[in-house]
Amino acid sequence: MEIVVNAAMSADGKLSSREREQIAISGPGDFDRVDALRAGSDAVMVGVGTVLADDPSLTLDGEQHRTERQERGDPADPARVVADSRLRTPTDARVLAGDAETVLLASADAPAERATQLESAGAAVVRAGERRVDLPTALDALDERGIGQVMVEGGGELIYSLFEDGLVDRLSVFVGSLVIGGRDAPTLADGDGFTAEFPDLALETVDRIDDGVLLAYTVK
Amino acid sequence: MEIVVNAAMSADGKLSSREREQIAISGPGDFDRVDALRAGSDAVMVGVGTVLADDPSLTLDGEQHRTERQERGDPADPARVVADSRLRTPTDARVLAGDAETVLLASADAPAERATQLESAGAAVVRAGERRVDLPTALDALDERGIGQVMVEGGGELIYSLFEDGLVDRLSVFVGSLVIGGRDAPTLADGDGFTAEFPDLALETVDRIDDGVLLAYTVK
Repeated sequence: MEIVVNAAMSADGKLSSREREQIAISGPGDFDRVDALRAGSDAVMVGVGTVLADDPSLTLDGEQHRTERQERGDPADPARVVADSRLRTPTDARVLAGDAETVLLASADAPAERATQLESAGAAVVRAGERRVDLPTALDALDERGIGQVMVEGGGELIYSLFEDGLVDRLSVFVGSLVIGGRDAPTLADGDGFTAEFPDLALETVDRIDDGVLLAYTVK
Repeated sequence: MEIVVNAAMSADGKLSSREREQIAISGPGDFDRVDALRAGSDAVMVGVGTVLADDPSLTLDGEQHRTERQERGDPADPARVVADSRLRTPTDARVLAGDAETVLLASADAPAERATQLESAGAAVVRAGERRVDLPTALDALDERGIGQVMVEGGGELIYSLFEDGLVDRLSVFVGSLVIGGRDAPTLADGDGFTAEFPDLALETVDRIDDGVLLAYTVK
């Protein structure tokens, strides 16, 4: 399985303001690139915090991408995966709507009743780990479902967990030309943070897009 | 007065780990650039958090830069300025050692006894603002002392305050190829954070240096 993290942050490393409101960090050039990256993935993954804050649909914007996927025998949209240890995804979340497949990665502790409700709303629930979802095990389960390429779109807690577990293969970051600030604002990688053995990246490409810059790394 | 903020951050926007330990984010190419930037400034400024965490001397590394400054009639080192509302800089801090001038920007509330001790240790104390140092007034006082070009090296609290007060003219950020992570790790701009009217930057240059990239902005 290949895991690609893609996110847009401000020049000071924030994904949004401390109020968790979505902020226009990138522009149309980057949106197109992100849609193409989604279209080339088997699944698009976020953490439940992103579902609760932004209520994204995680489906493709470009109709052409959907057609191309169908022409090669894939579903029109990639699967949608939410890392959701306690199954806090609302049953009316946009990530559950429409025809695209949705997989919720939960822990053993998540209430069975929630799982039943979410399954009725169309989701598949994969359990791994006791109190927090065990990501390596959960991703193995996705791999068994035929998901080989996962694009992770945030938030900072999930991205940190993936780096902590050594699961990230590539990272692309659009750095927007604005300052958001805030010691409590979400950043590209939150969690507890590393204090030693920081994940080492190799900067592969640097491209100016819109009014910002896209930095693409492989993880060493 | 021109205020230039310069800092090195990880690919996820952190200046250091949650333990506030200094981490090698940039390399020799960026060190040289930073030393040249310091040499071309009248003052190098940090917040007291940086003094307490890192105990920097804020003097020039390159002897050639010192000679060049002296040849043009300037002091060998730029002045060192610490934004230190409550005068918490220790009297044995390296920022007070040596021949370079040191100015502490304090609030009216900072204890007179601390001011006397720090003045005995060689610092000049400039007071502005009641409980927190009022940066626009304090920087005007620096301007009156002949300081026209200030280079700000951090930390994230000071940088945020300067953006909040609309005082930053240019921002240069070296983005190192590593992930630090941590919701409590210091970022390039901390403070309360903006929730609207985010400072807008213009990306002027993008240069690969060492194993990272230098992004240089002007503030719109």
